[in-house]
Amino acid sequence: MSDHLPRKAVVLVSGGMDSAVTIALAREQGYQVHALSVAYGQRHNSELAASERVSRMLGAVEHKTVSVDLRSIGGSALTADIDVPLDTADRSDIPVTYVPARNTIMLSIALGWAEVLGSSDLWCGVNAVDYSGYPDCRPAFIEAFETLANVATKAGVEGAGIRVHAPLMRMSKADIAREGQRLGVDFSMTVSCYQADGDGRACGHCDACRLRAQGFREAGIDDPTRYA
Amino acid sequence: MSDHLPRKAVVLVSGGMDSAVTIALAREQGYQVHALSVAYGQRHNSELAASERVSRMLGAVEHKTVSVDLRSIGGSALTADIDVPLDTADRSDIPVTYVPARNTIMLSIALGWAEVLGSSDLWCGVNAVDYSGYPDCRPAFIEAFETLANVATKAGVEGAGIRVHAPLMRMSKADIAREGQRLGVDFSMTVSCYQADGDGRACGHCDACRLRAQGFREAGIDDPTRYA
Repeated sequence: MSDHLPRKAVVLVSGGMDSAVTIALAREQGYQVHALSVAYGQRHNSELAASERVSRMLGAVEHKTVSVDLRSIGGSALTADIDVPLDTADRSDIPVTYVPARNTIMLSIALGWAEVLGSSDLWCGVNAVDYSGYPDCRPAFIEAFETLANVATKAGVEGAGIRVHAPLMRMSKADIAREGQRLGVDFSMTVSCYQADGDGRACGHCDACRLRAQGFREAGIDDPTRYA
Repeated sequence: MSDHLPRKAVVLVSGGMDSAVTIALAREQGYQVHALSVAYGQRHNSELAASERVSRMLGAVEHKTVSVDLRSIGGSALTADIDVPLDTADRSDIPVTYVPARNTIMLSIALGWAEVLGSSDLWCGVNAVDYSGYPDCRPAFIEAFETLANVATKAGVEGAGIRVHAPLMRMSKADIAREGQRLGVDFSMTVSCYQADGDGRACGHCDACRLRAQGFREAGIDDPTRYA
């Protein structure tokens, strides 16, 4: 491969602030970004529209959505008929908004696309600080997935190896807000809310809204979120 | 958990002879089988009908199909517009029927369902002997997935750990045919062909047909396959 060709990266995009900053960081490192959203039957379809918008805004060369219907296996407030909790104080347990094996499934699909593209780099915005209740948002998970990717694919077995980048892993939401500001990310284009309306306006009350607002507050940045 | 409750297993089912024998082996070990097929945009939809039929025949308590549209990422003769090769002699390379990250994606979805069911056991019929060209059909892959599963999920982190069973891994197709005969599997109900017709009749010419027929021949078992 010529040194002049840009390295391709598959970046998982949810339309929220974390994945927007992740795209911006991959672009800053010179990657050609192929943005991927996984439609897993989630309630908040406005996040898919935001994903497309955010990817375009941040210079991705393309954005694809792959559908996987996790509603049929149930188990989460985000895909099944369980109420999204509002303002939960106790975060010691794994929250009901956890989608079983979601990040494993999304990274697996990203891995498949990377293999087709000839890309060896997966990027995702998972974060262990604010969402520590999710087992698949921890460094050990990313490391185990990278190991798996390197035995599971042609690129891993025959090529130079696959890397899984999770640059936000140890950042707080305030760190992420500051990093986005440094990179010129327009956060008003992003949607984090678990139950945003059809126009992408946030509820202001769910866990995702609460954490996001707190991040801007702690970073001393005006919250650009469009609330319903 | 009571010792009297049967252990639940999620078994990946493709409708072919390998997954039929895998269900029968899980049942023999006393598992309550929850059969899972993943519809990944493959050409041969008759394999999904066979999956439902085979699961019911072998005593699974339920069969679910989860759809994931891998056609949008392309890359395989099984999902994209690439001809299925007939009677290829050279099996040293990874074949074009390889679907990028397919087993990673299918096991990930199985893992999500297992978590919802409270199951700690995934079963799949992957096999390193006849299909050695596929990187995701080797023992190293299964081991890496099991490691991942144990850091990725509630059940792995909080529970007794997740096991990935691949009982056919080191069996030849002839061994699998014999094992199925011992377990009373009716192979005429299974479909292995990459391009079976709508009625589940096999082409007799693709790699999957060739390997299957050879397995019966070597085992000295009459081939019950329905050919077109």
